[in-house]
Amino acid sequence: MTATLRDGFHCPAPIAPAECVVLGHGSGGKLSAALIKHHFLPHLGNPTLAQLGDGAVVDAGTQRIVLSTDTFVVSPLEFRGGNIGTLAINGTVNDLAMMGARPLALTAGFVIEEGLSFEVLDRIVAAMAAAARIAGVEIVAGDTKVVERGKGDGVFINTTGVGLANPAFTPGPHRVRAGDVVLVSGSIGVHGMTILSTRDGLGFDAELASDTACLVPLVDALRDATDGDVRALRDPTRGGLASALNEIAHASRIGVMIEEAALPIPGAVAGACEMLGLDPLYVANEGNFVAFVPPASAAAALDALRAHPLGRDARRIGVAVAENPGLVAMKTSFGGTRIVDLLPGDQLPRIC
Amino acid sequence: MTATLRDGFHCPAPIAPAECVVLGHGSGGKLSAALIKHHFLPHLGNPTLAQLGDGAVVDAGTQRIVLSTDTFVVSPLEFRGGNIGTLAINGTVNDLAMMGARPLALTAGFVIEEGLSFEVLDRIVAAMAAAARIAGVEIVAGDTKVVERGKGDGVFINTTGVGLANPAFTPGPHRVRAGDVVLVSGSIGVHGMTILSTRDGLGFDAELASDTACLVPLVDALRDATDGDVRALRDPTRGGLASALNEIAHASRIGVMIEEAALPIPGAVAGACEMLGLDPLYVANEGNFVAFVPPASAAAALDALRAHPLGRDARRIGVAVAENPGLVAMKTSFGGTRIVDLLPGDQLPRIC
Repeated sequence: MTATLRDGFHCPAPIAPAECVVLGHGSGGKLSAALIKHHFLPHLGNPTLAQLGDGAVVDAGTQRIVLSTDTFVVSPLEFRGGNIGTLAINGTVNDLAMMGARPLALTAGFVIEEGLSFEVLDRIVAAMAAAARIAGVEIVAGDTKVVERGKGDGVFINTTGVGLANPAFTPGPHRVRAGDVVLVSGSIGVHGMTILSTRDGLGFDAELASDTACLVPLVDALRDATDGDVRALRDPTRGGLASALNEIAHASRIGVMIEEAALPIPGAVAGACEMLGLDPLYVANEGNFVAFVPPASAAAALDALRAHPLGRDARRIGVAVAENPGLVAMKTSFGGTRIVDLLPGDQLPRIC
Repeated sequence: MTATLRDGFHCPAPIAPAECVVLGHGSGGKLSAALIKHHFLPHLGNPTLAQLGDGAVVDAGTQRIVLSTDTFVVSPLEFRGGNIGTLAINGTVNDLAMMGARPLALTAGFVIEEGLSFEVLDRIVAAMAAAARIAGVEIVAGDTKVVERGKGDGVFINTTGVGLANPAFTPGPHRVRAGDVVLVSGSIGVHGMTILSTRDGLGFDAELASDTACLVPLVDALRDATDGDVRALRDPTRGGLASALNEIAHASRIGVMIEEAALPIPGAVAGACEMLGLDPLYVANEGNFVAFVPPASAAAALDALRAHPLGRDARRIGVAVAENPGLVAMKTSFGGTRIVDLLPGDQLPRIC
């Protein structure tokens, strides 16, 4: 136990190395990476898991399928624009879409805390059904567990998705090359700041609604407009845009240079972030993705995104470069350049 | 909120209908069935989910695959014979095996409570790795979330499995016919009573170790010995043998008649159950299954089970009958007959 915990100080990033799990290990940042590297991969390591992609490709007889799993622990359970059920469907469907796969079916596992009202549960399950209908997938298997009061927090939902791999469309971070254009398909920071504005006692009430959405049709539009000429896709959820770009830079051993002035940050997000001292680059998104596209396809890609309702705020935000492999840098609005590193812990725990 | 909860009375089965989820809803008994029927199926209902099998069959292009999901919330996390990690692998692999499928790959989703020691986490993940090696499957995708202290309980683990369907071996409860012989592959009640003996303050210390095991080789032996002539398989985990038999009777609209004298109940289980007022028929198992086999294959099936180390305590315990469709009955050791119904709630919460 570290001093940070014994003293009841709940900084998500511990000052001394911890002997136990702390909140920051769930951040999607450096501590999360360390947790996986030191406590999971040494035991479970295999070439597929070690890729740490949004999903894994598995040979199933004559067919290649894609699997992806995600557990949702967002607090509060309900917020403007959706609830934990909406996120649980869209999040996993989107992870399959980021691998270029067509979602086939989902499973759902619920850990319910004793005392959860049926009224809330029904709204959550109805939202899952609505999101699944929009995504065109069914929940084919499920499991429910109940834990005592004080041993859970309303409900946690795991969804695992299976998709059909498309041999003609296999975006992946290892395929990125210097010169690729970096696009983002929509405004950033909206989901995270919506959750934050819903939490008690934070003293701001931005008029925001989560951007949670099924990105399958937007990925389809991008694929069709580029004849599948897309190098990598990633939805910047936990850890935000900065973490997604870092993961791609790390996996592909290229550098990424983005331009601050090009980032689509809505005024309400920028204002709330400034007030709370947060950086929108690290705030979670649930309805957009970053795409790395070869220069020859970039214009068609951007046009296709902007022509779709989910992509109307799409922007070209940067470029992959040969310099500084593994690093993400940003030209600031003031003309300087700064490194955009992974955060050690998290600005905002339990955002998805 | 019911009076039962407001008064702090934690009977797993509420006396009045609840307006919120209570512990008994996680029992695998009547309340669990009601939770699914009233709060999940109305929203998510589709023909596959409505079968409520151990897994679901999905068409993936040219291939049929089987999906199964399970979340593990056992308390305590570690016990004689294994830990939550062992259960999480064996439980899901076994669910695939009960559908006649060959396990291909697993995903794992962790919800970790802040403060879980790395020492315990490492033992759990190492146990998962060991169990996965024995089962011959890899964990190909994973997810970790961290929640604040008091919002979880150590760690909850969801595992979701994908298997390859075997067109020549598709046991399912709907295939059971009157006259089928009912076999159980091993001693009953061992896992549940092991967990109970590990809990504080229960005042008994039976020398029991969980029977958690990968049942794939035992199912393979049964399949090979019968040329696939097996009507239904079910692992009687949460809710025990009684609940598994009830589910099959309900799904197949046949009656099941078992004989109390034939049940393989170890002395330590019988003694602890008697002391605590529990019925071993409802105590969870993690290393055996019930098989419904046509009479012509029953002798070969039993021989094959008994020849395998995991099946040496296998017994013929009863028969499927045309009378009382949907009901399970038992000839007692005293010569009477009693109905073996589903329990409303659970004798033992959080056993897996």
